[in-house]
Amino acid sequence: MVLDGKKTSNEIKEEIKITVASMKSRGQRPPHLAAVLVGNDGASLTYVGSKVRSCEYVGFDSTLIRLESNITEDDLLQHIRGLNEDDNLDGYIVQLPLPKHINEEKILLAIDPKKDVDGFHPANFGRMTLELKAFIPATPFGIMQLLERYNVPTKGKHCVVVGRSHIVGRPISILMSQKGISGNATVTLAHSHTKNLEDLTRTADIIIMALGMPEFLKANMIKEGAVIIDVGITRVQDNNNAKGYIIKGDVSYEEVSKKASFITPVPGGVGPMTIAMLLKNTLLAREWN
Amino acid sequence: MVLDGKKTSNEIKEEIKITVASMKSRGQRPPHLAAVLVGNDGASLTYVGSKVRSCEYVGFDSTLIRLESNITEDDLLQHIRGLNEDDNLDGYIVQLPLPKHINEEKILLAIDPKKDVDGFHPANFGRMTLELKAFIPATPFGIMQLLERYNVPTKGKHCVVVGRSHIVGRPISILMSQKGISGNATVTLAHSHTKNLEDLTRTADIIIMALGMPEFLKANMIKEGAVIIDVGITRVQDNNNAKGYIIKGDVSYEEVSKKASFITPVPGGVGPMTIAMLLKNTLLAREWN
Repeated sequence: MVLDGKKTSNEIKEEIKITVASMKSRGQRPPHLAAVLVGNDGASLTYVGSKVRSCEYVGFDSTLIRLESNITEDDLLQHIRGLNEDDNLDGYIVQLPLPKHINEEKILLAIDPKKDVDGFHPANFGRMTLELKAFIPATPFGIMQLLERYNVPTKGKHCVVVGRSHIVGRPISILMSQKGISGNATVTLAHSHTKNLEDLTRTADIIIMALGMPEFLKANMIKEGAVIIDVGITRVQDNNNAKGYIIKGDVSYEEVSKKASFITPVPGGVGPMTIAMLLKNTLLAREWN
Repeated sequence: MVLDGKKTSNEIKEEIKITVASMKSRGQRPPHLAAVLVGNDGASLTYVGSKVRSCEYVGFDSTLIRLESNITEDDLLQHIRGLNEDDNLDGYIVQLPLPKHINEEKILLAIDPKKDVDGFHPANFGRMTLELKAFIPATPFGIMQLLERYNVPTKGKHCVVVGRSHIVGRPISILMSQKGISGNATVTLAHSHTKNLEDLTRTADIIIMALGMPEFLKANMIKEGAVIIDVGITRVQDNNNAKGYIIKGDVSYEEVSKKASFITPVPGGVGPMTIAMLLKNTLLAREWN
């Protein structure tokens, strides 16, 4: 069965839209998300544009703050402080990557954790890990929602997460092994030093691929009926395509989908969930603060 | 081979003692640790007493703050704020458990993360998880030090952590799978919902037991040459002992030690490392702030 991220993310957006309409009808200010974009990177422009449009769709206020790529670190920090102090703003994101002369860590640490709807600030990450109320990073949050809404059993299942990045592999490995819906799995976190990865994936009930290696996972690496979550999105050159590339996941979808019980496609799986969960976090920020 | 926590913790204390002597000889203030103890719980008194004596041994300043068990939450918070503002204090711990009428979470969140040498504050936990400079909780920090000082290979090894508590299982599962010395293991976190635990432990190169079930791990549950870390400390009734109890770990030491390549005894393994690493964190607090 296909875990349809496009459909599910649309459902979530509709739910948010209804909540916002109800807030407005009670005379309340709608949630307000700002996005900080430094420079003119094409992919970043696309992502941020899509986030802003999604805000408008669900009825959020949104602000796009575009800054020159030669902005100094101090000036950017000045903007961050302004956003932290803005009482009419519930949450904001700083689109990565930032230009090389700016220390990303320093910028992310300057974001008020209460407005950190990306969930990248250590204070949020720690709260999530210690099972306190927290903004969960959008991609792992989206995976948890997909599993939950499709009633995919996770309790006591062996889940292998491949890739230990801070924004996907690490947090999803933590969330899947915590108590709660879509949790209570026995989780193994695999990475570049893992030996005999196939031995691990072949015994897994659930495999979450967050590696960034196109079509890495083949049918002979999984067991019959496994649940496959594909977080990979790599641009692969394709001259037959008008854009000159196509997007590939970490999973050989064609062959793996025949053996899997549930599988996320790429595109249309985890990807669309990410924006929906950013909106969800912004709504939570509005409710919590 | 026995991983001798008593010997290793003594080595670490000697190293700290030398560093402190050198600080003092340069006219610098030595590190200063405070411990807050609410009420008269016997075990807590023992632990805190031992921490204070260790401070004195290595040349730290130490302050024991004893408060009545009927102190209000507000008054305790007032003490916490005072400690946060005390420039002559590098770190402090609030001995748990607190009386039932006090919200532990609220108290722990009030501790300035810069003085949180127990490493329990979410801001520290998040920093640790995101591989930033952080105070690592003493027990997992002690395990990492034992593995490092005995040159136990971990890179690419399969490590099974049994127990997902916030103070041991969760953090050690994170640390063992991060980059760095004693890291880069492929870690599986097992817990109460894990099925066929023996199948997992039998394939593990390293097993970390943090379950609190006396002598749970038997020889037939491990493979020949496995590394065994026993975090369990349970008091088991024993009328032949003057105290009326003996301390048991989670491992059937007698039989498991014959099959293991490295093993920590109980007592004298992980336990003594905990205080040493609290001292280490206090020294780091002195150096960082």
